[in-house]
Amino acid sequence: LPDPVGAGARKKELCATYGFEGAFPLDATLDLQGLSPREAAMRISRANEELIRGCQLVIAQMTPFRGPSADAGTAYEMGFARGLGLPVFAYSNVVEDFAARTESWARPTRRRGDGSLEDAMGMQIEPFGVEDNLMLVGAVAASGGEIECRETTNDERFSDVAGFEKCLVAARAHFDSAPPRT
Amino acid sequence: LPDPVGAGARKKELCATYGFEGAFPLDATLDLQGLSPREAAMRISRANEELIRGCQLVIAQMTPFRGPSADAGTAYEMGFARGLGLPVFAYSNVVEDFAARTESWARPTRRRGDGSLEDAMGMQIEPFGVEDNLMLVGAVAASGGEIECRETTNDERFSDVAGFEKCLVAARAHFDSAPPRT
Repeated sequence: LPDPVGAGARKKELCATYGFEGAFPLDATLDLQGLSPREAAMRISRANEELIRGCQLVIAQMTPFRGPSADAGTAYEMGFARGLGLPVFAYSNVVEDFAARTESWARPTRRRGDGSLEDAMGMQIEPFGVEDNLMLVGAVAASGGEIECRETTNDERFSDVAGFEKCLVAARAHFDSAPPRT
Repeated sequence: LPDPVGAGARKKELCATYGFEGAFPLDATLDLQGLSPREAAMRISRANEELIRGCQLVIAQMTPFRGPSADAGTAYEMGFARGLGLPVFAYSNVVEDFAARTESWARPTRRRGDGSLEDAMGMQIEPFGVEDNLMLVGAVAASGGEIECRETTNDERFSDVAGFEKCLVAARAHFDSAPPRT
């Protein structure tokens, strides 16, 4: 984001309002001096994983990013959280169905003999009527929630936090009914 | 894929050659009768997670899929595996650097005052010189491996298994030097 530190601070303030302490990648003060770009990337990756290991839940921004799906790093972190046994909440600032988005991105598409749709590479576009790849949607469903979707303007697509706040409400209800083990 | 069952069978045969039993999503015989598309998607998601819980390693195909990154479901499964403590091996049938791929996908790009590159939405394209989002690359690095990248023809981009076989070689070496706990 143009102002990632500010965006993180804004979300952490919202977290505090709901009784949570937000953890944000840029909280870590990593010494990346003298590292190659790849080494720096690997240190950031490890620090992000450690940050998630210290959390009791994850709120993922699933707004489609450079393609029909959520950012691959976000998808990874959702899976990581689920593997650790943490509940995953999520929001998206795009409402259009995943299959419809994929159809727009993967043109030219064509119909197979069985009526299913495939992209130019011959890969099927699966019409599940869900918000993104089923593994991501399943993580949120298995956590007892649903993806908070709303449409924003293009300018606010990655910065609007109304969906994030809805996730905080859901997370608060989740922990108030079943407090986390400490 | 046009023939997903065949593709899975081919990979499972390769696994057996290296002393592994391959687990593939379509192994599960799920009863999806009478379910809505969304309910079916959720059942498939849960079955895939259970399949991974029964595994001792994951080999991910990270070939870019409908955008500059690996499939979001694959990214999720890599994170899930790491959260469970499993080693993650990976291959990609595209060699071009992630930042360069992203630059192609996210045109028009522009330079910021500080020299960094941003896409049309004002989001930075980070030049880490790695193969995909740093969380995915970090998962493979933390498992002691590297992403096996080679270039294939467009027709074979999602079906070529030479990189998969290289991952099996790496996985065999990994377990022969440190047998998994049973």
